[in-house]
Amino acid sequence: MIEEKYESISPADFFYRNKEIAGFDNAARATYTILRELVENSLDSCENNNIPPDVEIRIIKVDDTNGVLANNKAAENGELLKIRVIDNGGGVPQEHIPSAFGQVFYGSKYRLKQARGLFGLGGKMAILYGQITANTTVEVASAVLGSRFIYYYELMIDITRNKPLQLKRKILENSDSWHGTMISFSFIGDYYKAKNRIIEYLWQTSMILPYASIRFVDPDGVMYVFERKTESMPRRPREILPHPHGVDVELLKRLIAKSKGMTLKEFLIENFQRVGPKKADEFLKYAGLQPDLRVEKLNQDMIVKLSSAMKNFSGFLPPDASGLSPIGEELLEIGIKEATKAEFVHAVQRPPSSYEGHPFIVETAIAYGGNIQPPGEGEVNLYRFANKIPLLYDVYSDVSMKVIKKIDWNNYKLKIYNEPIAFFVHICSTKIPYKTVGKEYIAEQPEVAREIELGLRENARYLSAYLNKKRAEEITRMRFNVLGKYLKLIAKYSSELAGLPEPTNLPTEAQLEEVREQ
Amino acid sequence: MIEEKYESISPADFFYRNKEIAGFDNAARATYTILRELVENSLDSCENNNIPPDVEIRIIKVDDTNGVLANNKAAENGELLKIRVIDNGGGVPQEHIPSAFGQVFYGSKYRLKQARGLFGLGGKMAILYGQITANTTVEVASAVLGSRFIYYYELMIDITRNKPLQLKRKILENSDSWHGTMISFSFIGDYYKAKNRIIEYLWQTSMILPYASIRFVDPDGVMYVFERKTESMPRRPREILPHPHGVDVELLKRLIAKSKGMTLKEFLIENFQRVGPKKADEFLKYAGLQPDLRVEKLNQDMIVKLSSAMKNFSGFLPPDASGLSPIGEELLEIGIKEATKAEFVHAVQRPPSSYEGHPFIVETAIAYGGNIQPPGEGEVNLYRFANKIPLLYDVYSDVSMKVIKKIDWNNYKLKIYNEPIAFFVHICSTKIPYKTVGKEYIAEQPEVAREIELGLRENARYLSAYLNKKRAEEITRMRFNVLGKYLKLIAKYSSELAGLPEPTNLPTEAQLEEVREQ
Repeated sequence: MIEEKYESISPADFFYRNKEIAGFDNAARATYTILRELVENSLDSCENNNIPPDVEIRIIKVDDTNGVLANNKAAENGELLKIRVIDNGGGVPQEHIPSAFGQVFYGSKYRLKQARGLFGLGGKMAILYGQITANTTVEVASAVLGSRFIYYYELMIDITRNKPLQLKRKILENSDSWHGTMISFSFIGDYYKAKNRIIEYLWQTSMILPYASIRFVDPDGVMYVFERKTESMPRRPREILPHPHGVDVELLKRLIAKSKGMTLKEFLIENFQRVGPKKADEFLKYAGLQPDLRVEKLNQDMIVKLSSAMKNFSGFLPPDASGLSPIGEELLEIGIKEATKAEFVHAVQRPPSSYEGHPFIVETAIAYGGNIQPPGEGEVNLYRFANKIPLLYDVYSDVSMKVIKKIDWNNYKLKIYNEPIAFFVHICSTKIPYKTVGKEYIAEQPEVAREIELGLRENARYLSAYLNKKRAEEITRMRFNVLGKYLKLIAKYSSELAGLPEPTNLPTEAQLEEVREQ
Repeated sequence: MIEEKYESISPADFFYRNKEIAGFDNAARATYTILRELVENSLDSCENNNIPPDVEIRIIKVDDTNGVLANNKAAENGELLKIRVIDNGGGVPQEHIPSAFGQVFYGSKYRLKQARGLFGLGGKMAILYGQITANTTVEVASAVLGSRFIYYYELMIDITRNKPLQLKRKILENSDSWHGTMISFSFIGDYYKAKNRIIEYLWQTSMILPYASIRFVDPDGVMYVFERKTESMPRRPREILPHPHGVDVELLKRLIAKSKGMTLKEFLIENFQRVGPKKADEFLKYAGLQPDLRVEKLNQDMIVKLSSAMKNFSGFLPPDASGLSPIGEELLEIGIKEATKAEFVHAVQRPPSSYEGHPFIVETAIAYGGNIQPPGEGEVNLYRFANKIPLLYDVYSDVSMKVIKKIDWNNYKLKIYNEPIAFFVHICSTKIPYKTVGKEYIAEQPEVAREIELGLRENARYLSAYLNKKRAEEITRMRFNVLGKYLKLIAKYSSELAGLPEPTNLPTEAQLEEVREQ
């Protein structure tokens, strides 16, 4: 027989072997993904602390005088780059710094609230990529709000064991009361191939976050500045309890283990949202379970039964949306108007909805004119965002594109391929139904699709009304111009007919214009 | 400031929280994915041992008399099902059974050879899904080739710790010298919504594996039989050394740690394919490194330099393809002919190629007629396979579809939308560039795309020639029929003209047919 070799690998090792599923396909794509993951961590850290984000990014070419890549044909396999990102966020408590940056599946993202990061993976993958391509250490400096010190670490990742290796640690006086995080490391990337995507990504980020200031200095020393357009920020997401519809056997078992001594009724009220004493009684009657049963008495079959009944009971209110932090119609319109110079923008925030027990809110917008170009036959100007992240890849697999292709735009007299129209869809949720770890596109959840459709249809009605009014005004204006031209003649002939002298006080062009505007 | 809660989660916990990225989106999709993952593990186990696979699958509805799902509206959230898969493969050594079925990232798949499973994840995710929906234990029985005993285990997964929980273990006499693996567990699924995909999956699997026998009994008791069509099997893949082009710093460091005391030259020859003494000297000269340097003396910069030079040196031969196990043109044609009843099938196996140091072989085929239907405008009959797995989802994102849409089929006089034409693409590699953990579609690697294109173009030339010949024959046949009809009259008039009696020995219909066939 053939001897098979069995072995166990660490999560860091798994993602090291399968980099492309996290968006690290090649040097160019990795450059984009590294920047994106670091920026998203910075933005999360700021927003979780209600701080309008200030994010500074710099990518430089590393002076390769000692010939590390002397034989490198740069165009083929990339060049040695160094990235540094600094934010003004809440900082990382010093005791967590090594693991938060040097251990896959360690982080603060495993909570029921909206965040850009969902997987606790991206930042570490970025660092890991630097390490495996450039053998680099990562430098991290961080100070939490009010900290007297700045903590500085130099780290690597022990990939085989999935543990941080601490190479250096310094404690610095925080004389300026700085707070935030600085991260910096080298990697072999390809900036020029990634450049367009990176600028597009930052531009779209600034569009959806008009309260953020982002500065990026690229390897040529060119600085891209995306200024803050408003100080007002959306409300911060807070952590929520799970909704009964989102339960499974594993979650129940975990919660039961923490709830020893409680009755079933107490257990439900304590651990789930939308369950008060009355609702608990009503539900337990439906499920055929005793309210005063101690949870540790639940046997295997009863747990499955409870889980199944919670999924199916239709009496629970929809999930609480206070774990979510949508942008809001006003901020969305400000951001889009600023970024596109559109002559018309309309944004809609749909009421909270849910799929499989996860609350979500869809925001959609439509924009017309300005710098927007007609996309051409079959193409669509679609900007997609999920938990405030722009999504740039795989647009044709995304739920929003599928919804747009389904709607008959003739009903709104909109020619989406040949008019300067752009669509914007933002989905926020405690759980975005991404199809890939690389967060490229969103699955076709029917509830999500329906909300997108309702939002876009409302946008379309408003744009349609605007364009109708605009067309009507143009027709009036044309008529008026015709009238204006003949006004002198009409005056002359009327005077002759009436046997009166010709009037001398005919309106001037400016006066006519004023009448037109009324 | 806001207190962030930091925590570490296990890999099992990560995939439990993000089931959809592994293909467990909902009850129907999970039913398909569970069957598929178990079948693929069985097929790998058979082929690794050169055994023509016999795989038996059964899904039954579980009698729910104790009311576990009494309140379940089946159509909405699924029903309680039980799956059992039995194969005649090489079996799992008993000491590995608990971890191989109860621990994520544990397995025999982390080797440089072609296998269906790449992630060591799918089978455990299937079991995990059963556990979290139906609180089920998994039963595993296995005997390796020649074992006197069958080992039976009942297991669960401790998701928080990512460890197997062993609930029962039995040792049974193996009186029939059975070898293989039996796995069985319950889950909440939706067979009827998954049915079409499952049957399609098994049908396509049988097409690409004409040497496999697959039987499936569905919950209605209907048996689907996919019989073996040939005993001949492709060669077994063997494990290979990494190619120098596929190296990174992490891999170098791991290999160096195992190679203490070796010189750089010895190290290269020992650890990489395509590196002999002469090639090693040539390369080290290019890299500017001393052949007799002990590997433990390599400092950080030198490791990066070595890694970079290995990637860029153009003097290495392309990767060794003996780690691969393609189907072969003959088996491919047998499988396709049997499955489609096509009147014409042509298969091509391209020579081995490589991307980023990973060897791969592309096999393509084209089929015409039989049960194949014209797909209709814009649609394509495309069957995709990767390491002998049929890929059923996300066809429009796949590299093969992109290649087909790019080719101008008019050059081959083929109307791929309106003629009964089907395409088949099989990619085998030690590393399939999947874009998702769910193994749905393949990234657009330029080298892979080029091989697919060359294969399909060759197929197209053959089909084109076949159709030309067929059309020419039809024309000849029509002409001949016309001549045949008038033969009597021609004979009569010619006789009259010549003043001779009418000939009596005119050919019969059967004789005319014979002439036609010549």
